[in-house]
Amino acid sequence: MPPFDVPEGDPFGPHNLPYGVFSPSGSTERRVGVRLGDQVLDAGAAAAALGSPHHALLARPTLNTLLAAGRPAWTEVRRAVTAWVTDPAHREAVEPLFHPLSEVTLHLPFEVADYVDFYASENHARNVGRIFRPDAEDSLTPNWKHLPIGYHGRSGTVVVSGTDVVRPSGQRKGPADPAPVFGPSIRLDIEAEVGFVVGVPSALGRPVTLGDFREHVFGLCLLNDWSARDIQAWEYVPLGPFLGKSFATSVSAWITPLEALDHARVAPPERTHPLLPYLDDSAPGIEPGGYDLRISIAVNGQVVSEPPFSTMYWTAAQQLAHMTVNGASLRTGDLYGSGTVSGPEERQRGSLLELTWNGRDPLELPEGKRAFLEDGDVVTLSAWAPGADGRRVGLGEVSGRVVAG
Amino acid sequence: MPPFDVPEGDPFGPHNLPYGVFSPSGSTERRVGVRLGDQVLDAGAAAAALGSPHHALLARPTLNTLLAAGRPAWTEVRRAVTAWVTDPAHREAVEPLFHPLSEVTLHLPFEVADYVDFYASENHARNVGRIFRPDAEDSLTPNWKHLPIGYHGRSGTVVVSGTDVVRPSGQRKGPADPAPVFGPSIRLDIEAEVGFVVGVPSALGRPVTLGDFREHVFGLCLLNDWSARDIQAWEYVPLGPFLGKSFATSVSAWITPLEALDHARVAPPERTHPLLPYLDDSAPGIEPGGYDLRISIAVNGQVVSEPPFSTMYWTAAQQLAHMTVNGASLRTGDLYGSGTVSGPEERQRGSLLELTWNGRDPLELPEGKRAFLEDGDVVTLSAWAPGADGRRVGLGEVSGRVVAG
Repeated sequence: MPPFDVPEGDPFGPHNLPYGVFSPSGSTERRVGVRLGDQVLDAGAAAAALGSPHHALLARPTLNTLLAAGRPAWTEVRRAVTAWVTDPAHREAVEPLFHPLSEVTLHLPFEVADYVDFYASENHARNVGRIFRPDAEDSLTPNWKHLPIGYHGRSGTVVVSGTDVVRPSGQRKGPADPAPVFGPSIRLDIEAEVGFVVGVPSALGRPVTLGDFREHVFGLCLLNDWSARDIQAWEYVPLGPFLGKSFATSVSAWITPLEALDHARVAPPERTHPLLPYLDDSAPGIEPGGYDLRISIAVNGQVVSEPPFSTMYWTAAQQLAHMTVNGASLRTGDLYGSGTVSGPEERQRGSLLELTWNGRDPLELPEGKRAFLEDGDVVTLSAWAPGADGRRVGLGEVSGRVVAG
Repeated sequence: MPPFDVPEGDPFGPHNLPYGVFSPSGSTERRVGVRLGDQVLDAGAAAAALGSPHHALLARPTLNTLLAAGRPAWTEVRRAVTAWVTDPAHREAVEPLFHPLSEVTLHLPFEVADYVDFYASENHARNVGRIFRPDAEDSLTPNWKHLPIGYHGRSGTVVVSGTDVVRPSGQRKGPADPAPVFGPSIRLDIEAEVGFVVGVPSALGRPVTLGDFREHVFGLCLLNDWSARDIQAWEYVPLGPFLGKSFATSVSAWITPLEALDHARVAPPERTHPLLPYLDDSAPGIEPGGYDLRISIAVNGQVVSEPPFSTMYWTAAQQLAHMTVNGASLRTGDLYGSGTVSGPEERQRGSLLELTWNGRDPLELPEGKRAFLEDGDVVTLSAWAPGADGRRVGLGEVSGRVVAG
């Protein structure tokens, strides 16, 4: 089927146009690509063929140059690419520059600078509190409603969808064990998240305000924050997660520009606590910071949960404002995860920890029961968002197979 | 004084030769430099002038290319540079390629990939435990003697010595406050640390063993992990330090190659708990992993503490083995901090938190009392290590001035 003829209703139609980096079949050269249906447009080649001024941003081996170009350039490039794939006048020039998605190799689409992970779902935080601190008066820590809790992760182990995840080894210690033991993690888990990609840097010492979110953030992707619960439980007091997380973080190969998601913007849940001014998104002139993304988690092809991103208490704009309020600078390629997305319903939880209530209620899969992941299991996150005129905007899936260490 | 004639006893003599990146007076071009006394040799220019095969590693704007080259290349380059600055036959060619240290601009010497900070001083960890958990049975957390606790920090805000540090703003909440308040930190502190610089990367899924430390780590520097104690106290449960640290981490402009410190290698303190095999540095064939570095902390020029690095419970080799035991990969430019260096004596503590016992016993400085840092205060860390024949090996100082936000 020629690429211009994307079926009506395809979530990767010309209303979407996410960016990635691919190598054509038989090549190792990396090129910026734009996904249309089940095809990938060689964006740099198209810019060259059409004499576009955006060639310098697109004929690159990563998205970083485009990311750094800023909101006005992002808008212009998107407008141009939209014309390339919809205007019949361009058809003859552009059509040969498409590659079938099934024949290309997809790469990590940008060089990750700093990676930060948040903890912004109230349902998730309360579930974790109830599981690990069942006797606590409040399942949330005292700071939770006052700031979006986050921590830095390992940017060097952010991998693209499709990369195998080697089961990590490490120390664990059960309450009854006299000393820690070493071995492969026996409680390997996932966390379904949304990742936000920073394009425009900021200066050291200059906080980025809530209202500047769209000037700095280019787009988003799905993110799986693989987690070894046994390693994490033993190591994380007092300085937070480290080896329980740092072995791998998977992101989708496609970065969805924020502009493709304008129809999915929603107000965040009502705030139960007053917010300090730098986080107060109820102030006049601040646009709603939530996104209505319908996530789906599949284990070995079977959907086990459907977390709704619209339920997140803290928004990506608030996370950006918080992350920089101390003067920390941003760099092109900074990536930050939303934190595990869990809705209020049982089958809306974003981790096996919550879905199985720490292993108490294993999932029943065709392959057998699962408290946590077994070698060979494949976990796939996918999502869509409402677009204009009843269309769906698809997010690139993030998938990974667990392999023995 | 001509550069070859470094005074006997100079801690930056030809036995030292740390690497950095500088711009000559009046230029913004970045070049690899080697420090000799109070002069900087333009290493790329020297390689070119002498027709050295190492030119491709040295004629660069950062140290990253040299870092990636690996131990055999590091040894060869060091041997070559040593000959350039000591062999009278090279004097005529090399002498014009020196710049007075006082006339050059020093830059961050390498592009930082991931930044990890550890917590490896038993004295420091016990002091912190006693200050914040005075009623606890043990001042150490249960995991402390079993693994080197660490967490990821913000690599984008690692700055070179001499960079002003803007006092961070953020949320803080005292025990009596009904809700958090926002404002400039009122408990701004330092942490005197040693930073280790990774040169040779490792593959995802392949741990680096204790014995491979010197194949991956190029050298070390001094590091000041600036810390806003009030921000940190409110935010850090349950996911660790974030904005209380991420506003700035200062490193010295000079990276001391491990080979310059061979005479400073010492056995670490006796282990009080058995170690799992991947951390057991008492095993046959494992070289002692400690370094005898004598650190000095000065506030506004007055020395307030002299922490001895030889007292660190966990070594840099153990930290590297731990950081990768879950399969996390290394990249060229990874930086990891030792954690605050505190000795057993009162005037050997590596933070104001400990030196003033959380503000209870302020320091008496000529400018007045100091519980924590005031705007305008300049903190300088310096250090030396024993070399051959009674010489001292100087480490590059790390200095920073606190400025109002």
